[in-house]
Formats: sequence, structure tokens, C-alpha cells
Amino acid sequence: MLKNNYFSSKFKLGVLGGGQLGRMLLFETQKFDIHTAILENSLNAPCASIANTFVLGDITNFEDVYLFGKNVDVLTIEIEHVNLDALFKLEAEGLKIYPQPNVLKLIKHKGLQKDFYIDNNIPTANYMRFNSLDELIKEKTQFPFIWKSAEFGYDGNGVKKIKDVNDLNSLPNIPCIIEELIAVKTELAVIVARRKNGEMLTYPVVEMEFNQKSNQVEYVLCPARISKTIAEKAIEIAIKVADSFQHIGLLAIELFLTKNDEILVNEVAPRPHNSGHFSIEASYTNQFEQHIRAILDLPLGCTESKLPSVMVNLVGMDTCVGDVYYENVVETL
Amino acid sequence: MLKNNYFSSKFKLGVLGGGQLGRMLLFETQKFDIHTAILENSLNAPCASIANTFVLGDITNFEDVYLFGKNVDVLTIEIEHVNLDALFKLEAEGLKIYPQPNVLKLIKHKGLQKDFYIDNNIPTANYMRFNSLDELIKEKTQFPFIWKSAEFGYDGNGVKKIKDVNDLNSLPNIPCIIEELIAVKTELAVIVARRKNGEMLTYPVVEMEFNQKSNQVEYVLCPARISKTIAEKAIEIAIKVADSFQHIGLLAIELFLTKNDEILVNEVAPRPHNSGHFSIEASYTNQFEQHIRAILDLPLGCTESKLPSVMVNLVGMDTCVGDVYYENVVETL
Repeated sequence: MLKNNYFSSKFKLGVLGGGQLGRMLLFETQKFDIHTAILENSLNAPCASIANTFVLGDITNFEDVYLFGKNVDVLTIEIEHVNLDALFKLEAEGLKIYPQPNVLKLIKHKGLQKDFYIDNNIPTANYMRFNSLDELIKEKTQFPFIWKSAEFGYDGNGVKKIKDVNDLNSLPNIPCIIEELIAVKTELAVIVARRKNGEMLTYPVVEMEFNQKSNQVEYVLCPARISKTIAEKAIEIAIKVADSFQHIGLLAIELFLTKNDEILVNEVAPRPHNSGHFSIEASYTNQFEQHIRAILDLPLGCTESKLPSVMVNLVGMDTCVGDVYYENVVETL
Repeated sequence: MLKNNYFSSKFKLGVLGGGQLGRMLLFETQKFDIHTAILENSLNAPCASIANTFVLGDITNFEDVYLFGKNVDVLTIEIEHVNLDALFKLEAEGLKIYPQPNVLKLIKHKGLQKDFYIDNNIPTANYMRFNSLDELIKEKTQFPFIWKSAEFGYDGNGVKKIKDVNDLNSLPNIPCIIEELIAVKTELAVIVARRKNGEMLTYPVVEMEFNQKSNQVEYVLCPARISKTIAEKAIEIAIKVADSFQHIGLLAIELFLTKNDEILVNEVAPRPHNSGHFSIEASYTNQFEQHIRAILDLPLGCTESKLPSVMVNLVGMDTCVGDVYYENVVETL
């Protein structure tokens, strides 16, 4: 096998984004003693005080991303909303960027992402793409449906169920897709780790329960309470998705299990994902370590579980601002 | 329960020592978002690049420890060889120091430690204390025995088996103890976490296998391959030791299981210990998190294992110096 220099003092891994996912990634790079630089626009960011190198800058700004990229050996992301032009230029100049800029481009735009599924015979809910709300209103008259902003959606943001024409008034006039309403039995997710040579490992299929009000995931159950046949089908589809993208790194594939036991790809995230946090305590190799192994082309770690597990997502009230203050820690522990 | 402010941005935990144990402790304080300051005398120390605050200074120097202590809210250690005078002064001035300076004083001197066991009816191997090698040579004529330096021993350093009078020549002329040679079946260890209110939890009894040449631990097996009766007896003795010290924090108790199934206390470490590293992957609460919970008077976490485990201790050759270079990482992973 090729010798690598990731574990030398000169190697530098760069991460675009310094939020909570970046912080959990840092715990693993620290464990492996991999020097890690973070680009983020606030000194209050979760990664600011513990990164080996913290660079203040905007991950959506061309100059900031480009200059940051010129000073690292491998570049990855903790969120897909980054400046792609800079990434394409860096890649053309020889920088290793995983996931690859062309994969990020497909995934960060939900219209392109859906087109990609159709082009690759990957089962997904029927949809229509629109360049604006005006265009949608002109063409769409049947209700209900699911509206999604084409870009910048995450954690339930940018997704709305539209029951009738009145609901349209609440939507912004931006590029979007609409999807048919699926009769969903359960939402599932599969995390795939894929290396450059195509080697892949999957985590067990998990079950995701969403908060009805916020659309955010509230519970993740591992393993999902589904039959072996359905689990195998979900894994098969997830592998097909990762392979179709020729993805390098971690890819989280969110799936709908319909009332008819059909499996449809909902959407994907090209990075560690909240559907994989269970792995921190429950898996032999957690998703953050696995992402690092995949992007550095190191042998993937065992994805089996030590124990079944449940992840509970605790989220601050949307009205909260200001300094963090942890209350009731004693009772919680 | 009392409200605490450990999870505010103003609280600062101080740690004397910034080596590998400190680094593993930092991973846990970062997880809990507890601002942690480290005192260590090298910018190349394992904690230097990831501590929230890194202070360059000597943990055995009065001024350095005292000034460091004046700037933190709770003080702990990663190694017991610290300046005790500074700790006693800081404690007298109101600083919370765990483990307590008087416990550290007893433990860091092997003569005092052994006397303490006798005073508290804790079973331990017979021993004699000497102020110097000269004194030992004058009084001791029977061989073989185990020689231990009274202070600064760790990881097998400062411990020697003395077979005959010739072996005495290799010893330094320093305060020491000698112990009778025990017919040992297995070496065991128990880690106890103890809070201020006396609440205690113990980890499972582990089995330690030592490298014959270096005296360093080579394997730790959890759980130990012993009967339930012996495990219960070991736990009982460990609890008695922690309670006798009125220890606050983590206490690792190393035990001899003799050929006659007697259990004797060998020695203790008042902190996370290599006999507890298995807990990082195998326990619900790892030893570093548990130490933090104990010294901050937070509810202790579950000490049960998710799985049985084996810890393997890899140590660099004693002739190695200079920059670290990791080879064969791919093969290892």
C-alpha cells in the first residue's frame, strides 16, 4: 500500500465550517493527532477555541475559501453551503477536496439532486422544478404538495407542506422544487462511507422520527424496526446512490419507506449527519472518524454496533439568543 | 440540589500536567464545554495545541503552580508529582483542589502510602522504609525483595526486583521502601469514582499483565478472569481504600491476587489511570468523564461495560528521541 503522510506534523486537514459538526470532527482528528484547520466567520463558533488552526472567514466567500484552501493538504466540509467556484478552482490546481466539488454542486441544489436520481434510476418521489414562486403559481394548481427551497435548506428549514392556495402566500419567491405527498410509513436513513477506490461500508439502517412542528429530526433509532428484507433493500439503494455520485467521504441517505413498502430516496447529505450521531456511543467506529478515514483514503473502520441505541435531538427554542447558559445539568446527568 | 456554574463561560477548570492523560481529559471537558486550562513546561506537550488555555510552567515549581491555581476555579492533576506546598497554600486560601493535597501527599510518597494502609487495616504486602540506600544496606541482609523509590516512580520506573547483594549496586542512594516478594497469581485493578458526599461507583475489576522487562502494563483485560467471590472482595477492598482516603475524584487501586487467593493492595493512583483506558471504548461513562463528574460534584455516570474489552499498551522504544513519526498507519487501521 502507498505510504501516506497524514500523520506527520506538516500535514494539514482543512474544514470549511466550524459549527457543532466540525467540533465533533475535531474530537476525532485530535484523537488521531491530525493537524486540523477550520474556516468559520465567528470567534464564538464551536470550533474556534479547540481547532489546531482557526481562520476567521466566510465559507461562502470566494477569496476566503480559496486562500484557506491554498494552505491545507486535504479539504473537507461540515456543511455543503460553501463557495463552489473557489472549490472548483482549487481542485483544478491540484487540491484534494472530498466530497468532490461536482458532488457538492449536485447535492446542494435540490433540483439538480432530484434530476440526478432520475438520470441514475434511483427511486425518488415525483417532483417539479421551478425557478421562482411566480413560476410555481403559474403552473401548479393541485394541492397538497411539499415545497422545498432549491438551496440552503437544512434541519427542516426550507421545507413546507402546502395544503392549499393560501399556504402559497407564506413562501419566498426563490428557486424551488415541489414533491408529491408520499404516504410514508417510516423515514429511514443509511450512512455510507466510500473511499477513492470504491470500497464502501454502510452503517445499520436507522429510523428517524421528526418533530411535526419544526420538521427537525427528534429521535433516531438504531437499528430501525423494519424487516430484514426492507433493511437489505434500503442498504442496496444507499450503496447505489453513493456509487452513482462516485462520492468520497461520508454520505447520509435519507429514505422514505412508503405504506406500500416501497423505498424512495428523499435527500442526501455529503458529510457526517444527525442520523449518524448514535455512532459516537454505539458503533465501533463513529461517523466522524469514518469520514476522516474515507477522505484520507485510510482503511474504513467497523460499522457494526456495540449496542442498539437511540439518539435524542435537543434543540434550543427558536426565540433564544445570546450567551449559552446550561441549566439543570445536575438533574440531566 | 445545588445549582452549579461549571457550565458557564466564566468557570475555569485547571489541570496540572499536559501529557497524554491530560489530553484524554481535555477530550471530555471539550465534550462538556468546560473551559480548561493546562499547566505544562513544554509547547510540544500533548495538550499544548488543544487546551482552551495553555500556561507554560513547571508543575513542580511553587510559584508556577500557585499563580496558575489563583486563576482557576477548580484544580485537578494528571500526575501526582506536583508542588504540594503550593497546593496546600491554595487550598488554605479557598481553592477547591481534587484530589485533595493531603491525599496527594500520602500517595506520592510510597512509604507514607504503605503506612496509611497499615493504619487503616488495609491488606498490603509487608514492607520496610529506608531514608537512603546506605540505611537499607546496613539493615537488610535477606534476599530477594522488591525495591521501590519512595517518590517519582510511575509506569514501572523506580521499581526493581533485587535478587542478591550485587543487585544493590544498581540502586540510587535515595529514600525507598522494600517489599516482600509476593507469590502473585494475577495483578488486578479497580477504579473507584468518589464524590464529596461519599457517593462511590466502581468499574469492573480488571486484570493487568505486565511486560517482564519494562515492568510496564502491557495488557488490561476487562472483566478480569476471576471468580465472582474474588471480584466482590477486590471491589470491597477498593471501596475501603477510597473511603479511608476520603478521596474526591478517580482513584485507581492496583491489587495483587496471591496464589492463596488473598488480595493485597499494591499501590494507588489518584487520577485516571492506564488500568482504565478500556473505558474509553467499552464503558458507558469513560474514566476521564467520570473524573470530571467526581471533582465537579456532578452525578456519577454508569460504570457498566457495553462489551468486554482488552487494552493493549504500545510504548515507544526507550532509545527513541525527536519528532514523532507514525509509520504503518494504514496496516494498523
